[in-house]
Amino acid sequence: MEAEIITIGDELLIGQVVDTNSAWLGQMLNKHNIRIRRINSISDNKDEIFSQLTDCLKRSGLIIITGGLGPTRDDITKNTLVEYFGMGWRVDQQVMQQLEAFYKSRGRTMFEANKLQAHLPDGCKTLINEWGTAPGMWFDIDGKIVISMPGVPYEMKNIFEFRALPLLAERLKRPKLYHKTIVTINIPESILAKNIEDIEDGLPPYVKLAYLPNWNIVRLRLTGTQNGEKDIASEVDDIAAKICQRIGDGVVATEDLNMAEVVFRQLALKNKTLSIAESCTGGYISHQITLIPGASKVFVGSVISYSNSVKHHQLGVDTTLFETVGAVSEQVVEQMVRGVRERLQTDFAIAVSGIAGPGGGSEEKPVGTVVIGICSATQTLVRKFHFIGDRMNVIGRAGNMAFDMLRRMISSETQ
Amino acid sequence: MEAEIITIGDELLIGQVVDTNSAWLGQMLNKHNIRIRRINSISDNKDEIFSQLTDCLKRSGLIIITGGLGPTRDDITKNTLVEYFGMGWRVDQQVMQQLEAFYKSRGRTMFEANKLQAHLPDGCKTLINEWGTAPGMWFDIDGKIVISMPGVPYEMKNIFEFRALPLLAERLKRPKLYHKTIVTINIPESILAKNIEDIEDGLPPYVKLAYLPNWNIVRLRLTGTQNGEKDIASEVDDIAAKICQRIGDGVVATEDLNMAEVVFRQLALKNKTLSIAESCTGGYISHQITLIPGASKVFVGSVISYSNSVKHHQLGVDTTLFETVGAVSEQVVEQMVRGVRERLQTDFAIAVSGIAGPGGGSEEKPVGTVVIGICSATQTLVRKFHFIGDRMNVIGRAGNMAFDMLRRMISSETQ
Repeated sequence: MEAEIITIGDELLIGQVVDTNSAWLGQMLNKHNIRIRRINSISDNKDEIFSQLTDCLKRSGLIIITGGLGPTRDDITKNTLVEYFGMGWRVDQQVMQQLEAFYKSRGRTMFEANKLQAHLPDGCKTLINEWGTAPGMWFDIDGKIVISMPGVPYEMKNIFEFRALPLLAERLKRPKLYHKTIVTINIPESILAKNIEDIEDGLPPYVKLAYLPNWNIVRLRLTGTQNGEKDIASEVDDIAAKICQRIGDGVVATEDLNMAEVVFRQLALKNKTLSIAESCTGGYISHQITLIPGASKVFVGSVISYSNSVKHHQLGVDTTLFETVGAVSEQVVEQMVRGVRERLQTDFAIAVSGIAGPGGGSEEKPVGTVVIGICSATQTLVRKFHFIGDRMNVIGRAGNMAFDMLRRMISSETQ
Repeated sequence: MEAEIITIGDELLIGQVVDTNSAWLGQMLNKHNIRIRRINSISDNKDEIFSQLTDCLKRSGLIIITGGLGPTRDDITKNTLVEYFGMGWRVDQQVMQQLEAFYKSRGRTMFEANKLQAHLPDGCKTLINEWGTAPGMWFDIDGKIVISMPGVPYEMKNIFEFRALPLLAERLKRPKLYHKTIVTINIPESILAKNIEDIEDGLPPYVKLAYLPNWNIVRLRLTGTQNGEKDIASEVDDIAAKICQRIGDGVVATEDLNMAEVVFRQLALKNKTLSIAESCTGGYISHQITLIPGASKVFVGSVISYSNSVKHHQLGVDTTLFETVGAVSEQVVEQMVRGVRERLQTDFAIAVSGIAGPGGGSEEKPVGTVVIGICSATQTLVRKFHFIGDRMNVIGRAGNMAFDMLRRMISSETQ
């Protein structure tokens, strides 16, 4: 059985909202060996929903719909499904009780529009929504499954993971897919490809290789499809090992981790701590580290020294440097990184100063100029880069590069 | 003419990459009054591309394809289009020269695979890629337009904005759409809807209202379609004004801004400065502010005080409080916010301490407990919240709430 996703909402089509739900659903289904054939985003419009649903049901056995289940008038998914499937209505008493409790606990009046959330198509199973008022719905239609859930990401995730997936798992036994991801940094895609050309040429037909470039990272994803009795996982792992050996120290991970996670794991394993001084990256690097649950095991804190005054007072940077060499310089970053490590008393430190753009560039220091420093008790390393792309690109690339420099220093010191 | 987007890549279907390209393209097309009918994400597979392209060309006049143009073997879009349209090949000399210059400037060898980037279908216009090696392609097919671009976001954006859009603008004259967004905070969607029920009932048929909830923000989007000679913009603006008056101070903006942008504009207008002390939000709030170009006009810096030691040494929090009331307490946050404002010498300050989860909660202080403080020269305000959702939800809601508290304080002090 193949799956398709239908996300409903004009906000997706005019780009007011980025569709993160589909990527999350893709990950979940992929883990359960269900292949997604297409992701379709359409308007809150009855005719479009009818036409898309008809197309999807022709192609695929599992259709997951998100969006359009709220209490307001622009939410038309539930009514449209009732009409499409020719069903009647029922009141779900469990949902009604849950709604009553929800509004009571918040001291809010329950309006008629809220009560309507408990009115469901009479041919669907209810998927309880623990974090909101619009329940999910599960339809069995001629051997195919249609699941409809609200579009609010954390409500959808909760419903899918704890209500829909267990039902799906019961229903489906899937042929095995095995994925292996290799994360590389600072090697252009075409050089990577040239470097492993012979390995790629020798891949068996049931193993596929994809290149996923983003900023200065390229992820290589090997996908093996179970082929008879052979152990596909160990076969793919062997190929991955060959590729890693060929690429060498440009490989930062052999599973799908971001750079913050790579460095976090290294530090956690060695019981080492980290502090950060950020200027042009403005908190992004700290945010990446603190998105990781349990970050406090390694991360002590940061100084976001956007102004020169903060660089001087909080990090001890010599003020004369701002006039002689400027804030975006090896000298200032060296003092920033030593300053933050010393003041926050950590094993390692990162510092970044640069020009993220679009303004602030000069001929000598164009937009994208970034100086990155790292240090430990015994070493300090400062390097200057020129990154391309828009503001977020420069920030993101600087973050990855800083983490990579630190990764190498940690490895060299803690063999 | 309606548009459709086709994004190609297995990484989208298994959720390894979030499709941000479509949202960006949606925004750009929407600005130029081109309606997107559907967004379709499909596999790197010839049959899927053929079938999707056939469907799209039946429905819509403009098809925008992203992805699958890289130099590696999993990139099949160009070959597939040549086959689909029955075209031959040509070598684009301008692209070839650009490629040669690109590799020369980087001191890199140009492989055969790289040279192939200059081989293009003989029936397409070339859309030069300034930031990468895969050019975009423009096809005119029986009065319809097909545009194919690489999937790397910053390359795609540059090609679309500076190469494709000018050609599109020449070609299309569009009936006018007018959007107006009202951003509200801390009002549940159904209460908002009840509150403006009569206004929504009275909307003319050519004005549509949508509710877009995310975390503790609900955006209301009014969309008017030009209806004869009437001035649709001023009519929609009048309706928006009525809604704003009804909702009152829950309205934070009457254009599509995030909370960081709202507060940034307030501060910039009044020439006031901001510093931040972040614990559980870990740099996210600072990152939101510093994503705004020109942030240095108002933002001085932050202390990310993840550990209690940093709260004490860098912000002056009394260490006995950690044992008596704990780091997630009104008393600690009050000292954090005053400490950061005083040490970084700013007009206003924000401080946040809490439990983002999934671990670290207790019966007294469950996951989601967040204390937020703001202060100015004359006022300090500290409030305790309980946010629901996963780690990123708690961080995001805390950020919005902190900005909203500050927004109100700035307004009250700078009438």
